[in-house]
Amino acid sequence: MGILRQRGKEVTVAVDGSGGDNGMKHVCSAVNFAQTMYPEAKLLVFGSSVLHDEMKGSRIDWKRCEFIQTPQVIPQDAALGDVLERYSRSSMYQAMLAVKEGEAQAMVSAGGTGPLVVLARHLLGTVENLRPALCARMPCGPGRYSLMLDLGANAQSNAQDLCDFARLGDAAARIYLGTDSPRVAVLNVGTEQFKGSRLVQEVRELLEQRQELNFIGFVEADRIFCGDADVIVTDGFSGNIALKSAEGVYRIFSSVGGLKRFFAKMGRPEWLLPWQYNGSLLLGVRGNVVKSHGNAGREAFAVAMVEAVKAAVNELASSMQDTLSLQH
Amino acid sequence: MGILRQRGKEVTVAVDGSGGDNGMKHVCSAVNFAQTMYPEAKLLVFGSSVLHDEMKGSRIDWKRCEFIQTPQVIPQDAALGDVLERYSRSSMYQAMLAVKEGEAQAMVSAGGTGPLVVLARHLLGTVENLRPALCARMPCGPGRYSLMLDLGANAQSNAQDLCDFARLGDAAARIYLGTDSPRVAVLNVGTEQFKGSRLVQEVRELLEQRQELNFIGFVEADRIFCGDADVIVTDGFSGNIALKSAEGVYRIFSSVGGLKRFFAKMGRPEWLLPWQYNGSLLLGVRGNVVKSHGNAGREAFAVAMVEAVKAAVNELASSMQDTLSLQH
Repeated sequence: MGILRQRGKEVTVAVDGSGGDNGMKHVCSAVNFAQTMYPEAKLLVFGSSVLHDEMKGSRIDWKRCEFIQTPQVIPQDAALGDVLERYSRSSMYQAMLAVKEGEAQAMVSAGGTGPLVVLARHLLGTVENLRPALCARMPCGPGRYSLMLDLGANAQSNAQDLCDFARLGDAAARIYLGTDSPRVAVLNVGTEQFKGSRLVQEVRELLEQRQELNFIGFVEADRIFCGDADVIVTDGFSGNIALKSAEGVYRIFSSVGGLKRFFAKMGRPEWLLPWQYNGSLLLGVRGNVVKSHGNAGREAFAVAMVEAVKAAVNELASSMQDTLSLQH
Repeated sequence: MGILRQRGKEVTVAVDGSGGDNGMKHVCSAVNFAQTMYPEAKLLVFGSSVLHDEMKGSRIDWKRCEFIQTPQVIPQDAALGDVLERYSRSSMYQAMLAVKEGEAQAMVSAGGTGPLVVLARHLLGTVENLRPALCARMPCGPGRYSLMLDLGANAQSNAQDLCDFARLGDAAARIYLGTDSPRVAVLNVGTEQFKGSRLVQEVRELLEQRQELNFIGFVEADRIFCGDADVIVTDGFSGNIALKSAEGVYRIFSSVGGLKRFFAKMGRPEWLLPWQYNGSLLLGVRGNVVKSHGNAGREAFAVAMVEAVKAAVNELASSMQDTLSLQH
């Protein structure tokens, strides 16, 4: 993975200490984990006084961590139109602002997707007028990954949006997976050329015209974890459904009881552990923004934080901007 | 399960002996299995002379099985407009015709979804002008099931179609799961009222107006196998993605190698075995039509055949027609 090569560079990551179904429970251990894995990373944690007290009681290296108290939290049901104007003192807004103003090189949040996308688009701006999308690494074997996007940044997408996602995924895969000519596929209900919804048919026609992309056709959802493509493009609705359905089955396997529990643990393919791929990158904005799953466990939030550190160290967003502007 | 109660009634099931990625390999063993489980069932198998030879070599009870040789197979890439006119001598067409003409009380096929839906709609006709949909039993614990539809009968659906699916699912759940007031939910990317695509928002508004349905709101894809609803309604694209994504993860758990294989087998939740829920019912047509997964294994095709026998024994299609016409 190309992304892991650059190390030792000092970076600062802004952490939205609110949000997530587990509240602030996992923030402390995630900070600890990130500090252990990345001694070169400095963290700016934004959150409530309660979180501050909790953090003061834990073994955090305060030389490499700063706490900024924020009085607001964006509620789950906040109208997206209000986020920019009414929640400028929230931890999510302030963490995003830190990226905008260059105080941090990445931010991570377990808060709502809607507010996160609104803040990122408006505070950081978009790249080449592309539609931003949430992109995750999907494991497809030990140490092997595909990128899949959009996973829910957009509730509604058209064919042009999906083309944007393809370009974003392609640029990210070049940097992230270190592949020269990433194989780009569109998620569909079949692999035959004329199968599927009007949307995927329109997308296929558009992508077939883009010479700079290595478009290989359709991929079915049962092959997401098989590495058939380096980039899997889908609308935010279907992508979210695909990912959550997979997580649901995984969780059932992990939650068997009694004696089966032992066998299940011994028998599971470790490379598929869902928390390993927590931390979706919001691609297409002028800054590194990582979204953690809302009900991420302790390990998962830590992994998302590490994703943010890696994106910062590797200057992912600006590398992507360079790649995309060259293509244009 | 209400559906299992009626037995001992003589029924005839038409079997499309072509189609499916595994060709005719599994037809013989599925016929054997169905004959063992349902001594009251007679089978009409439609297929090629090659299949006939294969079947003659196996231990089938020919007193309860008849073979009808058909010269055509509907190719994977057949234009749907051609299916009715150009493939009337195919096994799928002839098996459907047997249902239309009352020679069989159900049919089962592992052939293409597109041709199957076209033939069912035109030869059998639709119920109450509702849009037909593929519906499967999703396991959500030992012996517990939800129904989910559409799983791919329609590549493109609008809000009114999804309302039709809700009515079909409700009627099927009353008969199939024996529930008086099935909880109907719509698959979405979140459970909050205003979340999701325009389509699911329109569907929510329509379903909230239907007094005869017990509409309980949205359900997320990671809860499909949790029994949060009796009927999960979704468009054919998303439903197919959700199901296949789940199957993909399941398959990874089942295909681990070496020593892990033993542990995985011991540790898996048996109630989740995908072949147990093979055999989707095509609801909304005037006859019992069961679609088997294209790459169904031996057990899976046998289970689909048994679904067809059960639908025939319980007169599922005509019971549903009664339920739906009463509501109108």
